[in-house]
Amino acid sequence: MVTTELRRDPITGRSVLIDLDPHPHRDDFVVGAGWAGAADGTGQEGEASAGNVAFDGNVGAAFRRTVPCAFCEGREAETGLELLAWRDSGAANEPGWSVRVVPNRRPMLRIEGHQDRRAHGVFETRDGLGAHEVVIESPLHDQALQDLPVDRLWRVLWAWRTRLHDLRRDTRFAAAVVFKNHGRAAGARMDHAHSQIAAYPIVPAALDDKVRGAAAHFAHTGHCIFCDVTAQELRDGRRMVSDTGPIIAITPFASRVPFETWLMPREHAPRFEEASDAVLEAMAVVLKDVMARIDWALERPACNLVLHTAPFSGEADLSFHWHLEVIPRVTRWSGLEWGSGIPRNPVSPEEAARVLRSVKPVGPGL
Amino acid sequence: MVTTELRRDPITGRSVLIDLDPHPHRDDFVVGAGWAGAADGTGQEGEASAGNVAFDGNVGAAFRRTVPCAFCEGREAETGLELLAWRDSGAANEPGWSVRVVPNRRPMLRIEGHQDRRAHGVFETRDGLGAHEVVIESPLHDQALQDLPVDRLWRVLWAWRTRLHDLRRDTRFAAAVVFKNHGRAAGARMDHAHSQIAAYPIVPAALDDKVRGAAAHFAHTGHCIFCDVTAQELRDGRRMVSDTGPIIAITPFASRVPFETWLMPREHAPRFEEASDAVLEAMAVVLKDVMARIDWALERPACNLVLHTAPFSGEADLSFHWHLEVIPRVTRWSGLEWGSGIPRNPVSPEEAARVLRSVKPVGPGL
Repeated sequence: MVTTELRRDPITGRSVLIDLDPHPHRDDFVVGAGWAGAADGTGQEGEASAGNVAFDGNVGAAFRRTVPCAFCEGREAETGLELLAWRDSGAANEPGWSVRVVPNRRPMLRIEGHQDRRAHGVFETRDGLGAHEVVIESPLHDQALQDLPVDRLWRVLWAWRTRLHDLRRDTRFAAAVVFKNHGRAAGARMDHAHSQIAAYPIVPAALDDKVRGAAAHFAHTGHCIFCDVTAQELRDGRRMVSDTGPIIAITPFASRVPFETWLMPREHAPRFEEASDAVLEAMAVVLKDVMARIDWALERPACNLVLHTAPFSGEADLSFHWHLEVIPRVTRWSGLEWGSGIPRNPVSPEEAARVLRSVKPVGPGL
Repeated sequence: MVTTELRRDPITGRSVLIDLDPHPHRDDFVVGAGWAGAADGTGQEGEASAGNVAFDGNVGAAFRRTVPCAFCEGREAETGLELLAWRDSGAANEPGWSVRVVPNRRPMLRIEGHQDRRAHGVFETRDGLGAHEVVIESPLHDQALQDLPVDRLWRVLWAWRTRLHDLRRDTRFAAAVVFKNHGRAAGARMDHAHSQIAAYPIVPAALDDKVRGAAAHFAHTGHCIFCDVTAQELRDGRRMVSDTGPIIAITPFASRVPFETWLMPREHAPRFEEASDAVLEAMAVVLKDVMARIDWALERPACNLVLHTAPFSGEADLSFHWHLEVIPRVTRWSGLEWGSGIPRNPVSPEEAARVLRSVKPVGPGL
């Protein structure tokens, strides 16, 4: 059992989650480290060993788990008890589901814990209080999210919405983020398609940066910055990828990586968890379409998805606007990004949008 | 010739450097992307082709350049004209040097350009004005920075100091950052040991976050936060790695990655470029020692170095304190970090410092 601590950096004020378990998990490491390799990793994602792979080596193939894995249909007993499932048949924790939400077996945040901060001189820490859940997106091991038919993709979004709704009721949580890792280069440790939901006792920095910026824009103009950006992009057109209904897709003006793409509602809407069934359906259609275009352009790259919805307090509801970031992981963060915090993106969003618009994806369900 | 633009994200206010060249460089991509592969890469680092490597594949071996490369002694004509060199013999741009500074052939920032910002509705952009230089750390292709004897490592630090001093005289620049990528997983595209110096027209976000936090602490307490942290760490001891002279090494309380280590002067000093020869010598000794310990613990991991020195204006000189970050790259950034901005670090800094202290490195020059 891993205990974590949220530590505040005394200089920047930004937080880090530190595992206090002295035996780190082998899967946490990209390359085999002599010291880490000596630790005894156990747990859901812990059977493969990095061993002594070559310096700067890729451990992809060696790490791949054989099927069936704990996320496969028929192995429900290997996960924690399900929190939610879309079922056509079967009882809870039995086969018959198409989407299933379970607790993360190695949660970085736990329901048990205290909210209070503790100071040690200039340092400040608090318990890793929160929730960390896994959304298993398909009963089949080799079915990628974007390969699901639209009605099945809809059920994944339904699971996100339902769990966010529920987590918001816990008043100890300040905000939640949904994210997905697809491919080893994007940090995935299980090949079976899944996303994760994390609820935090604070508004996490990446969301907070947007909330603060949006609040400043609102205070200055009386407008939602996302609505203003959307209006300008619809007029301009150069960064539009998809503009067919209530959900639009753009490559953001300050894209951090090649082919970064954002999906968001055309009309102001602070929270994903309050989206209607019809909006979720439009979202499923556009997400499937955008992923097909990106997969064509970059040959199915490793990719992260990030869903940002307004903090739970509701204070940002006038200024914040939910959106889904699609982040292909085809470039590497170097000392440049660590040192400056200014990513270098070798592909302009205008060029990326032009390429994505030029594709005519065809495939199952499209 | 690549033209870049610094674009401000309209929501967070953070900047991104966008290459406006429509033909991105193949080396910028980790995996072969069909679209990127079609582009015609040229330039210093551009001969290898990613081709169609496997999804999520590692391209390390295929990408390695054969020796001699443009950074090797005897190939001086293949780089731009040298800006600085430590020479035992030879004229400029001839063999006989041990450290050599040249312009980056694919600079992300250029000396030519305007300082003014341009607004396009909610968007804001400016020229990628600045400097981008390469410090070739050895004339030999296979000699890593940490394998240099201390007097040679000192010359690399001397080159950083000299160039920073010179760059500060250009009043169009707000700050400079020195960084190093060691190994493909850390973003290196040349195997020949080198570091890079980038001067920016703005204080870049990663430095600005520290400058602002340090200023707030100073306003509140009248103290430099780095001095306060140092004093507390020296009393506590659990995160000390090295404490032998004017340069100390610690694993920071809110370490973002396993074995993150910071080197900094024990006494208050805002700028690296004003460090004395003796301080540089202590720095060379401690850096070599710390790198040997990290190389032992993590089997010579891919690694970034980042040097943060106070912004050029001098306004932060009372509150800011220069330091060098050593960032082993043994974990991967996932959707978790992108989505929350809260890194998860599976190894506590107390455990990392304990392991690093326990090592007794032996080797050439130690």
